[in-house]
Amino acid sequence: MVPPTPPRSCLKQAVYGLPELYRSQVASTQLVANPGCYPTGAILALAPAVRAGLIEPDIVIDSKSGLSGAGRSLSRQAHFSEANEDVAAYALEGHRHLPEIVQEINLLSPQKSLSITFVPHLIPMTRGILTTCYATLTAGKKGKKELSRIYGDFYKDEPFVRVVESPPHTKHTWGNNMCLIYPTVDTRTGRLVVISAIDNLVKGAAGQAVQNMNLMLGMPETMGLEALAIYP
Amino acid sequence: MVPPTPPRSCLKQAVYGLPELYRSQVASTQLVANPGCYPTGAILALAPAVRAGLIEPDIVIDSKSGLSGAGRSLSRQAHFSEANEDVAAYALEGHRHLPEIVQEINLLSPQKSLSITFVPHLIPMTRGILTTCYATLTAGKKGKKELSRIYGDFYKDEPFVRVVESPPHTKHTWGNNMCLIYPTVDTRTGRLVVISAIDNLVKGAAGQAVQNMNLMLGMPETMGLEALAIYP
Amino acid sequence: MVPPTPPRSCLKQAVYGLPELYRSQVASTQLVANPGCYPTGAILALAPAVRAGLIEPDIVIDSKSGLSGAGRSLSRQAHFSEANEDVAAYALEGHRHLPEIVQEINLLSPQKSLSITFVPHLIPMTRGILTTCYATLTAGKKGKKELSRIYGDFYKDEPFVRVVESPPHTKHTWGNNMCLIYPTVDTRTGRLVVISAIDNLVKGAAGQAVQNMNLMLGMPETMGLEALAIYP
Amino acid sequence: MVPPTPPRSCLKQAVYGLPELYRSQVASTQLVANPGCYPTGAILALAPAVRAGLIEPDIVIDSKSGLSGAGRSLSRQAHFSEANEDVAAYALEGHRHLPEIVQEINLLSPQKSLSITFVPHLIPMTRGILTTCYATLTAGKKGKKELSRIYGDFYKDEPFVRVVESPPHTKHTWGNNMCLIYPTVDTRTGRLVVISAIDNLVKGAAGQAVQNMNLMLGMPETMGLEALAIYP
Repeated sequence: MVPPTPPRSCLKQAVYGLPELYRSQVASTQLVANPGCYPTGAILALAPAVRAGLIEPDIVIDSKSGLSGAGRSLSRQAHFSEANEDVAAYALEGHRHLPEIVQEINLLSPQKSLSITFVPHLIPMTRGILTTCYATLTAGKKGKKELSRIYGDFYKDEPFVRVVESPPHTKHTWGNNMCLIYPTVDTRTGRLVVISAIDNLVKGAAGQAVQNMNLMLGMPETMGLEALAIYP
Repeated sequence: MVPPTPPRSCLKQAVYGLPELYRSQVASTQLVANPGCYPTGAILALAPAVRAGLIEPDIVIDSKSGLSGAGRSLSRQAHFSEANEDVAAYALEGHRHLPEIVQEINLLSPQKSLSITFVPHLIPMTRGILTTCYATLTAGKKGKKELSRIYGDFYKDEPFVRVVESPPHTKHTWGNNMCLIYPTVDTRTGRLVVISAIDNLVKGAAGQAVQNMNLMLGMPETMGLEALAIYP
Repeated sequence: MVPPTPPRSCLKQAVYGLPELYRSQVASTQLVANPGCYPTGAILALAPAVRAGLIEPDIVIDSKSGLSGAGRSLSRQAHFSEANEDVAAYALEGHRHLPEIVQEINLLSPQKSLSITFVPHLIPMTRGILTTCYATLTAGKKGKKELSRIYGDFYKDEPFVRVVESPPHTKHTWGNNMCLIYPTVDTRTGRLVVISAIDNLVKGAAGQAVQNMNLMLGMPETMGLEALAIYP
Repeated sequence: MVPPTPPRSCLKQAVYGLPELYRSQVASTQLVANPGCYPTGAILALAPAVRAGLIEPDIVIDSKSGLSGAGRSLSRQAHFSEANEDVAAYALEGHRHLPEIVQEINLLSPQKSLSITFVPHLIPMTRGILTTCYATLTAGKKGKKELSRIYGDFYKDEPFVRVVESPPHTKHTWGNNMCLIYPTVDTRTGRLVVISAIDNLVKGAAGQAVQNMNLMLGMPETMGLEALAIYP
């Protein structure tokens, strides 16, 4: 099921397939690296703030994923009786998606060397990743409304990102290709909190691959991806 | 079911009923304020690091709670079809447990004014709170082993706190009065990460109340609280 | 949200909206009574056997439903902490869907007065109804293959019923309008066992209403209903 | 982990370890065959009715089990993403517990040759088995109250069986050694319906083994088994 790895020499041609950041490059390449599920949620949550220079370099990313994120192979941790009624963190020594997150968020902020901690958690559901990001706002940029405006502008033409007015639920993306993003400020501490929700199997995986394929083939970007979330 | 609120004049006599911090005071008072579920997990996770001066004042507390933490009253968010297969953050403007968390962690660190952000999340399970805490380590204090030793010493005589060697699962506290704590270091960034797991209805509520009652009455502290966690 | 009840005088014009049994009548009426979720699963499971005179009049129908079948209104039984990790039967004195089930199955078997017991159960999931039906086979008609053939013939032109070769999972209908039916024989006892799986909110409710609307308006019957089940 | 199988020659000495039926034999043997989880729920539900000759020989047993009943070994069906939001029947060709159920229920009814169909289902929870049993009442014995009295008398001295007045929930036995039994009549059809609830890992497995051990060693039968159910 795993596709063959392209030869190392192809690495330079590969484009990181997050259309919200690299749409034109995806459209003109022959090789796309489809993002991981955790990076999709984390990068989309942080991109507007990092690019606008709104935050200090210390960033904490705390993600909560359903079990399908752990794949289909059998393991003790994915056994129903273990995973049900349980939550735990894992991969504290460095999840395999960490380098991807660090690389892409740093590229958005060339002048600063960011210090990113990422901790994933498994929670008892099948689909969905909720990512909660924390960073201190730089002086002078604190308004909730201004934040909302900056995020809204950043994603205003995106078919699959919606900046929302209240904390998003992963259920609101169940089975579809949307990423919901809620930026807010902890006014007591001047800290930015941004929360994103995706379905890890759609925008976090196959759906995004289809979105990239559409771009590469010159098809409408949303083709095959118009499904509404299934609720409840 | 809610007990009568004691008159305001009693406030000064009240002791905060976290035995790990106030055992002797609990034992000699007539009025105990039993801690909330989120504060129990957060304070026990951070106390050793804060008291030892290991961390900078910026602290992020990210908690994941089962639905029983939201109480027994009926609400849309607690309807099975809404809560199942879903995760979301809530109370971003300040959860009612926030002042309790801020007060107690600041008391452990008199010289510093801490900047604490606390974000609770509801996840689809009945019991359990996992709390992941993040803070930057002060210079020169970074060893994982040293951390483990400091935490181990802090809790070495505690019947209901265990410092563990791998990320704890809430399932490992299901139905009992234990708090499991895992302190570690994100060595890439020099950041302390501490994770605690409790059953919010036992150590986070009624179990801790019994523990306090035992202390107040001069009974063995563990009386009635020896149950093992139920697994799986 | 509940539509107005048509006047009693309209009752005679109403057609029972199970297209597999009343397609032409639905297509030519102005008023359709859309079936309940339990009746849909039960009637489709039993119709071929009853109409072919394969079974004795004693029928047991044991259904297992997710919580969305209990509606969106708030109740103790639908509270996550009550419904999670629990299963129970309910409405043993007669569920409101019982008369509908009894009426329609008897209509398929005019010569016999059937004796039908129906017991619904709530299980901890959001969507799906699995219905297990039991009845003694009349003498001389016992082959598993013959059964499969009779069921296959009965539903051979149906777009939303599939006779399957192994016990169906409700997950295989998650979010779509299919009814999966597995007829088999307990050869030790000569008893027919038929199991059906539907998504109670689609084929068991709104999906079937759309199917009926399509028929009434002369549209293609499957219009708007081509979604695949979402898996996992 | 699996204990060695005793030699075949020991079979004749072995006692079937359902204390409610074989208490004195268990107390005086050296070898007990601890009942399976499904048989425990099914036999306890049916024993009073069968022994009192209340029902015709056609019996249907429909069981719903949590995933821990399928054991700890890894399998696709026990993967969280497969089992969550799903229900299905299995082992329709004859579950390995079927002979045990048939043998023991027939022993309670020496004069009749019973015709028993047993269909187990997996539902998305960790612990618990709910068993719904159906049989036609023999003429003249139909009162709900009389039924309740007969069941109450049968189990009146049993520490771990409770005859209850409404459909039992498996949650009410979560983590303890109780079997709750609800006998009722479908008065429309004169059919007996009996529902039992157990925790498959306690009364359905290790708890019952301890109960048998207590009897064999002459200890109080309830020793080590007094735990209340954990709720919610």
